[in-house]
Amino acid sequence: MPHAAAPIVLLTCGDPAGIGPEVVAKAWAATPLHADARLRVVGDAASLAATLADRAGLPRLACQRIDSADDRPSTAGTLLVIEPPAAAAGDVVVGSATPAGGRAAAAAVLAAAQLVLSGRAAAIVTGPLHKEALHAAGYDVPGHTELLARACGLADAEVSMMLWLPEQHGAGGLGIVHATLHEPLARAVSRLTSAGIAEAGVRLAGLLEPLIGRRPRIAVAALNPHGGESGLFGDEEPRIVAPAVGLLAAAGVDVRGPLPADTLFLRASRGEFDGVVALYHDQGHIPAKLLGMHRAVNITLGLPFVRTSVAHGTAFDIVGTGAADPSSMLAAIAAAVRLVSVGWPLTAAAAPAAARGRR
Amino acid sequence: MPHAAAPIVLLTCGDPAGIGPEVVAKAWAATPLHADARLRVVGDAASLAATLADRAGLPRLACQRIDSADDRPSTAGTLLVIEPPAAAAGDVVVGSATPAGGRAAAAAVLAAAQLVLSGRAAAIVTGPLHKEALHAAGYDVPGHTELLARACGLADAEVSMMLWLPEQHGAGGLGIVHATLHEPLARAVSRLTSAGIAEAGVRLAGLLEPLIGRRPRIAVAALNPHGGESGLFGDEEPRIVAPAVGLLAAAGVDVRGPLPADTLFLRASRGEFDGVVALYHDQGHIPAKLLGMHRAVNITLGLPFVRTSVAHGTAFDIVGTGAADPSSMLAAIAAAVRLVSVGWPLTAAAAPAAARGRR
Repeated sequence: MPHAAAPIVLLTCGDPAGIGPEVVAKAWAATPLHADARLRVVGDAASLAATLADRAGLPRLACQRIDSADDRPSTAGTLLVIEPPAAAAGDVVVGSATPAGGRAAAAAVLAAAQLVLSGRAAAIVTGPLHKEALHAAGYDVPGHTELLARACGLADAEVSMMLWLPEQHGAGGLGIVHATLHEPLARAVSRLTSAGIAEAGVRLAGLLEPLIGRRPRIAVAALNPHGGESGLFGDEEPRIVAPAVGLLAAAGVDVRGPLPADTLFLRASRGEFDGVVALYHDQGHIPAKLLGMHRAVNITLGLPFVRTSVAHGTAFDIVGTGAADPSSMLAAIAAAVRLVSVGWPLTAAAAPAAARGRR
Repeated sequence: MPHAAAPIVLLTCGDPAGIGPEVVAKAWAATPLHADARLRVVGDAASLAATLADRAGLPRLACQRIDSADDRPSTAGTLLVIEPPAAAAGDVVVGSATPAGGRAAAAAVLAAAQLVLSGRAAAIVTGPLHKEALHAAGYDVPGHTELLARACGLADAEVSMMLWLPEQHGAGGLGIVHATLHEPLARAVSRLTSAGIAEAGVRLAGLLEPLIGRRPRIAVAALNPHGGESGLFGDEEPRIVAPAVGLLAAAGVDVRGPLPADTLFLRASRGEFDGVVALYHDQGHIPAKLLGMHRAVNITLGLPFVRTSVAHGTAFDIVGTGAADPSSMLAAIAAAVRLVSVGWPLTAAAAPAAARGRR
C-alpha cells in the first residue's frame, strides 16, 4: 500500500522518436517503487498511448491522463500522464531526429521543472533526447541539464553531473565525477587546477553519502602514465593532483590518490572505492561504458531539486524492436526516490560551500 | 606424442622473489602445448627446485637440469631447466626487491636471448621482473624488452609492444598498440603525428594477422571527447587522426576511425574489432585492465625473434600464498607457439617498412 505522503516523481520520455517511451513503459511496469513514490509521466497522453500500442515488446499498460493536482498513488498497470501546457505532438518520425521530437522533449522537461519548482512534485527522471532534434526545435543547448539549469535561473557552469553505476558486481555502486569534461583534451590537461579537482571531489562525496548511506571512499585519478612514475612521466601529480587530494582530506573527505588511472578503475570495479574523480572525459567514460553503461545513471548536481537521467541515448537503430533495456531508467528512478527520501539536495546545504555547484 | 621438430620455446621466471616461478610451474603443468613445442625454463635449477618445494599451491613437478643442446621433448610432469652461464642464486628475499633478484632475472633472459640468437631455440616467454630490483642489480633499463633490444644490438625505440587480450568473451581476442606510451600526457598529446599513428596501426595489423589467421579489423581511437564533436572539442581528429586512418587504408589495412574512445573499447570488447590503436598510455591501459589483464600478454615487435611476456607484475604481496593466476603465462606461451608456427617475424619482412619497428 503506497504511503500517503509518498513523493511525486515525474518521468519524461525524452525524444518520442527514440527508445525513451519504451524504457519508461518497461520501467513503470517493473519498478518496485510505486509504494515509495507516486510516479507520473509528463508528456502528450494521446501520442504516448499510440506509441505503447504500436511498438513491439512493451508491457500492456493503460494510459490515463491526470491533472497535476491529482494526488492518487501510481500502480504498475496504468501509466499516469500529466500533459505539458503545450503538448506538441507534431510530426515525429520514429527513429529519426526531427524538430517535433526535440519540441516534445523540451516541452515535457520544462513542464516537469515548473511542477517541481512550484512544489507539486519532488523530482524529475529524464529519458534520452537527441541533441540535433533539440537544436532543430530551436533550443540552443546540449541537453536536458542545461534546459533545467536555465529554467532554474542558473548558468550552465553551475550544474554538473555524477555518473552513477549502481551495484557494481554487488560491490555497492560506483560514482564518477569529472574535473574537466567537454573540451579538447589538450586544453583540459592545461586547465587542471588543485581547486577544481578538489571541488569535484567534494561534490562527489556530498552526493554519494546520501546515496549509499555511509561515508564514501573517494579516489582521485592521476593524469600521467603510472601516476607520473615519480616525476619521470610528468609533474602534474605532485604539482596539481596531490595538493587536491590534500585539500579533500583537509575537508574531511575519505580520500586516496593520485592513483594510476588504469589500475584505479580495476580496483574501484572490485569495490575498493565508492567514487572516483576523473580528470578528463575519456578517463571516466572509457571505464564507465565498459563497466555497464546500460544500467548507468546521470545525477545532476547544482539544481535545487533531484534530477536523475538515463545515461544512454535515443538508440534510434533499435526503436520499436522491443530490445530497449530499461535498466538505466529503473536505476534512475531508484536513485531519484532514494535521494528524495533522504532530503537531498537540502542536506547539501550543510556541506562545504564547494559542494554546492560551481567548479 | 610431440612432433620431432617441435620448436624449442624458452621460459624465464623473471624475478625469483615474485610470482614468476609460480606461474611458470602452474603453466608448465597445465599447458596443452607440450606436443607443439619443446619447453625449457632458463634459470638456476637448484633455487627453482627449492622454490617449487617451499611455496604453497604449486603442482608436484620434478626439476631436471639439461644441456642447451638436449633435444628431448618436454612433458607436463618434469620442468626441464637450462642454466645460464652465470647462475646467480644470491640472497633473494621472497616478496622483496633485491639486487640478487634483479641479477637472476637479467641472467636468465640474456642467456635465453643468446640461445635464440644462436639458433638453439625459437622463442622466449618471460615472467615478471621488478624494475627496482633490476636497477639495483646494475641494469639501467626499464625491463626485459630493453635488455633484449640491447642484446640484439637494437635501440630501445626500435622495439615496441602489442598488448594482446586473447579470446575476449569468445570474440577472438583483442590487440592494442599505443601511438605514444611512457611520457607525460601533455607531451604525448602534443607529439601525436599522422605518421606515428599510422605506423602503430601497420605494426598492429602485421602482428594480428598471423596471430588470428585472417585480415584483422583495426580501429583507431579519437583523442578528444566524443571524437572532437565535429571540431567543438578539439581539431586533432581532422588534423592528425583522420589522415592517419587514410594512410592505413591506403596501405591496405581494414581500418575505421577516428572513433570516440569510450564507445570504441566497448564495441571492441564485443568483438567488432580485432585491434585498436590507442593514442596514449591510459587510453589503452584503462580498458585493457578492465577487460582482463590477468590473462593479457605482451608481444614484442621489432626483435628478430618471437618474444612474449606476461602482462602482470611480480605481485610481491601474494607470493607463496598459492593465489598466483597462471592465465597470462599460459596465454603468453600459446601466443609464442602460435607465432613461431606461422614463421613470424620472418613474415613481417614482407610487410610494409613501417611495420618493422621504428615509430
